[in-house]
Amino acid sequence: MWLHTRCDMAFDISVPTPFVLMLRPRSGAQQWVAREEYRLTPHVPVHEFTDGFGNLCQRLVAPPGRFTIHTAAEVKTADFLDRAPGAPFVEIQLLPDNVLAYLLPSRYCEADRFGQMATEIVAGAAPGYDQVTAIQHWLSASIRYLPGSSEQPLSAAEVETQRFGVCRDLAHLGIALCRSISIPARLVVGYLYGLEPMDLHAWFEAYVGDRWYAFDATQSELRGGYVALGYGRDAADVAVYTQFGPPAYPNWQEVEVRPGAPPI
Amino acid sequence: MWLHTRCDMAFDISVPTPFVLMLRPRSGAQQWVAREEYRLTPHVPVHEFTDGFGNLCQRLVAPPGRFTIHTAAEVKTADFLDRAPGAPFVEIQLLPDNVLAYLLPSRYCEADRFGQMATEIVAGAAPGYDQVTAIQHWLSASIRYLPGSSEQPLSAAEVETQRFGVCRDLAHLGIALCRSISIPARLVVGYLYGLEPMDLHAWFEAYVGDRWYAFDATQSELRGGYVALGYGRDAADVAVYTQFGPPAYPNWQEVEVRPGAPPI
Amino acid sequence: MWLHTRCDMAFDISVPTPFVLMLRPRSGAQQWVAREEYRLTPHVPVHEFTDGFGNLCQRLVAPPGRFTIHTAAEVKTADFLDRAPGAPFVEIQLLPDNVLAYLLPSRYCEADRFGQMATEIVAGAAPGYDQVTAIQHWLSASIRYLPGSSEQPLSAAEVETQRFGVCRDLAHLGIALCRSISIPARLVVGYLYGLEPMDLHAWFEAYVGDRWYAFDATQSELRGGYVALGYGRDAADVAVYTQFGPPAYPNWQEVEVRPGAPPI
Amino acid sequence: MWLHTRCDMAFDISVPTPFVLMLRPRSGAQQWVAREEYRLTPHVPVHEFTDGFGNLCQRLVAPPGRFTIHTAAEVKTADFLDRAPGAPFVEIQLLPDNVLAYLLPSRYCEADRFGQMATEIVAGAAPGYDQVTAIQHWLSASIRYLPGSSEQPLSAAEVETQRFGVCRDLAHLGIALCRSISIPARLVVGYLYGLEPMDLHAWFEAYVGDRWYAFDATQSELRGGYVALGYGRDAADVAVYTQFGPPAYPNWQEVEVRPGAPPI
Repeated sequence: MWLHTRCDMAFDISVPTPFVLMLRPRSGAQQWVAREEYRLTPHVPVHEFTDGFGNLCQRLVAPPGRFTIHTAAEVKTADFLDRAPGAPFVEIQLLPDNVLAYLLPSRYCEADRFGQMATEIVAGAAPGYDQVTAIQHWLSASIRYLPGSSEQPLSAAEVETQRFGVCRDLAHLGIALCRSISIPARLVVGYLYGLEPMDLHAWFEAYVGDRWYAFDATQSELRGGYVALGYGRDAADVAVYTQFGPPAYPNWQEVEVRPGAPPI
Repeated sequence: MWLHTRCDMAFDISVPTPFVLMLRPRSGAQQWVAREEYRLTPHVPVHEFTDGFGNLCQRLVAPPGRFTIHTAAEVKTADFLDRAPGAPFVEIQLLPDNVLAYLLPSRYCEADRFGQMATEIVAGAAPGYDQVTAIQHWLSASIRYLPGSSEQPLSAAEVETQRFGVCRDLAHLGIALCRSISIPARLVVGYLYGLEPMDLHAWFEAYVGDRWYAFDATQSELRGGYVALGYGRDAADVAVYTQFGPPAYPNWQEVEVRPGAPPI
Repeated sequence: MWLHTRCDMAFDISVPTPFVLMLRPRSGAQQWVAREEYRLTPHVPVHEFTDGFGNLCQRLVAPPGRFTIHTAAEVKTADFLDRAPGAPFVEIQLLPDNVLAYLLPSRYCEADRFGQMATEIVAGAAPGYDQVTAIQHWLSASIRYLPGSSEQPLSAAEVETQRFGVCRDLAHLGIALCRSISIPARLVVGYLYGLEPMDLHAWFEAYVGDRWYAFDATQSELRGGYVALGYGRDAADVAVYTQFGPPAYPNWQEVEVRPGAPPI
Repeated sequence: MWLHTRCDMAFDISVPTPFVLMLRPRSGAQQWVAREEYRLTPHVPVHEFTDGFGNLCQRLVAPPGRFTIHTAAEVKTADFLDRAPGAPFVEIQLLPDNVLAYLLPSRYCEADRFGQMATEIVAGAAPGYDQVTAIQHWLSASIRYLPGSSEQPLSAAEVETQRFGVCRDLAHLGIALCRSISIPARLVVGYLYGLEPMDLHAWFEAYVGDRWYAFDATQSELRGGYVALGYGRDAADVAVYTQFGPPAYPNWQEVEVRPGAPPI
């Protein structure tokens, strides 16, 4: 399906503030960006680079005053997420070199502490895709999805204690559970068509059956309409904006995802 | 300055034909892509990746029949190219690791064969930027810039014999001369505002004074208005389209570069 | 100085166990590996790759039974660590792209939680190298270095609570403090000549004055004799061995570092 | 089989001369380096880095006077080269991203000029491995392998004209022929046990059946005993030494490859 995505943010900046943004969706195997807009007001010099995870990142220094960011895109994305019940667990020694890092614990995914819990959750499931499905079901059933409940990322351990969280929190716990049973998992940040309430979204992917598959414990079914902005080990790696110096939160943010059309 | 760039191509394809395209300008230190369009007709699946030189490349298989490619962008680029008379030669041992490859001979730049000629051309010039300027002047004076004179890339040795060539040919010779006196040099393909006749363009960059500087022997002065699409060792690495199988030339191609405006 | 390093490990393996090892020191700007041995008993197929931080990593599956690893090297390393009192803080916008990741919080370095503490610790120090020196002094004075006190890595927050730790623990807290005041910092694992008791060692590096400098809060002075095996954001990234499946600890490990000599 | 390799070189240097060496074999899927020595006399500072092809490269400046390089290694390598008659051609669109560059023409492999010749040579062979075998047979039959016949690399076109060449020359022509029929091919430089006369060696690899396979037109059969030092598009990328400034040839070079033994 073709989707039109839009994200607008406004910051009130007091001192010159370095930012790293990750707001340019990348064309890849799963999505094609046919049109894109990226506007900064006031316009400042931007340096763009590719980070260690393959994301396109924009570096800039926001000047004092009101600083607004406008991005929009026309993206072709899958109508339905690929599903693969039965897809097997990939033996560690057969994983591609660059997937290994997604087995390690990371800031918000203390994979080293969830071995026993994960083993119980996936009991009886065939190793691989079905285990991740069991984790997703457990998350949906056990952790209440409460949009807006937190501003800062929570770690998997914190989410497990608190028993509720935003999309990113559920994803962090799902990732930690996967990694603790040696299934590589990563965080994805982006857009989802039909999300209620509309906002930026986060979900996770697990590497089984020799490729990455998407999972999302916040949705009752794995429909399509996902647009990825960035990938990483957790929210520390993949944030639509990382800002340095005195905290600056957007005092206004608006996200829109609506049906699009192939550009003519 | 803000520029609006557009490139349209049409191919008549007889059998399914794999293509690698390099038509998505990348935001970087020198340019900012504020709006972009990329349209394939018919629309086919595309896989985008970053090549070893940092270019965004699009892989696809063009189906039989007419296949058209439309790209357009709104880009902020420098009003004037940076110039640095006197910028010094960088000792080999001080070059960044990833610049070393630009000293080696490559398909169309037989740097191993131009040592004596280069030494004569740069005689008297201070090592570094001024040597490259001498090479640029020699090219302008000695090799006639003849747009449309060749379809296939010529190597530096062929250009030196023939004494005329398209922009890419002059750049190849300039690169070979630079490398032969141990100055790293690379080919850039992209757009130039005001080019006559309008077309895709190629120029070269040399690494002196601890950074890359642009040079263009086809223009009487180093004004601004350049938009880069890709970088590489020579035209083998950096081609707006590389096509596999039976040759397929665009039977129609149109390039436009006009003053643009910051997107509102 | 020339050093001879040796590390021997023995594991009792019950089921085939995938390992990722990081026991091959890499020659680089700071050290030169003139001779090296790497022996696995029994010998099993090994696949070596370079991870995202530039480390040489060895992948293998250890078979059931006793599995031993022997590595030894003859390395030239600096007699004295470079020190640079007064080296300035590097503005975020001027950091190299690939250094940015070392500003982010990571598994064992919750940099997002130490802003206030770090600000107090570095009060009065000139931004940059001197701030890191202040952090190192604070660590030496406040966190007791207690070799052997922990087997598993502790996070900076845990170390700060516990007030003692192994070399890695002190380094984690030092890294978190640096990052919280926007100084990039990373963990180094390797050898140190004269370490008491002799063992593998960990220290940290901070990026100030446009390069990485080493710091080590476990030593009373910054003498030389360091040999690096690997770099990373924290102990999750850089471990001399990462093992998957049922835990397998070395039931025997021996490390030796003694004066060496240039190979003849 | 275990092999002991040794390469000694001596240069008489007149002015400080920057070198890039590629003399450290890398452990990988195909070989395991169990012991290694690398000695420079006089010892000078060395900076080691990984190039764009994954090779470990050593940068240094040789001082005036006699400069000697000694490298030796104990390497486990395959007893027999993998062969795969019938392994299929890989469709361009299915090639891994990082293999695409090995389809392009390069300095010494003018793949763009051998389409017709290659088509004739492989006539009747099944697309893929068998085509490369046909190319190898044609090389063995048509181009005389004449060790010592050239010092400088020749390009495929030059070799085709001259009809004789060193190992590297035959490999260049083989690579150009493969690429011209859309089979990725690359140059390998290293050692071969039993080579007559003993020297450094070069051969080529082709990507068919989803992996790289080795081919060597200088040998009557594809036995094992190969140790790779480096990979690249051709001899411009992969040279055991690249030297800058006034030419400096080794006035003495000795290569030894003999049966080795697992280090004890």
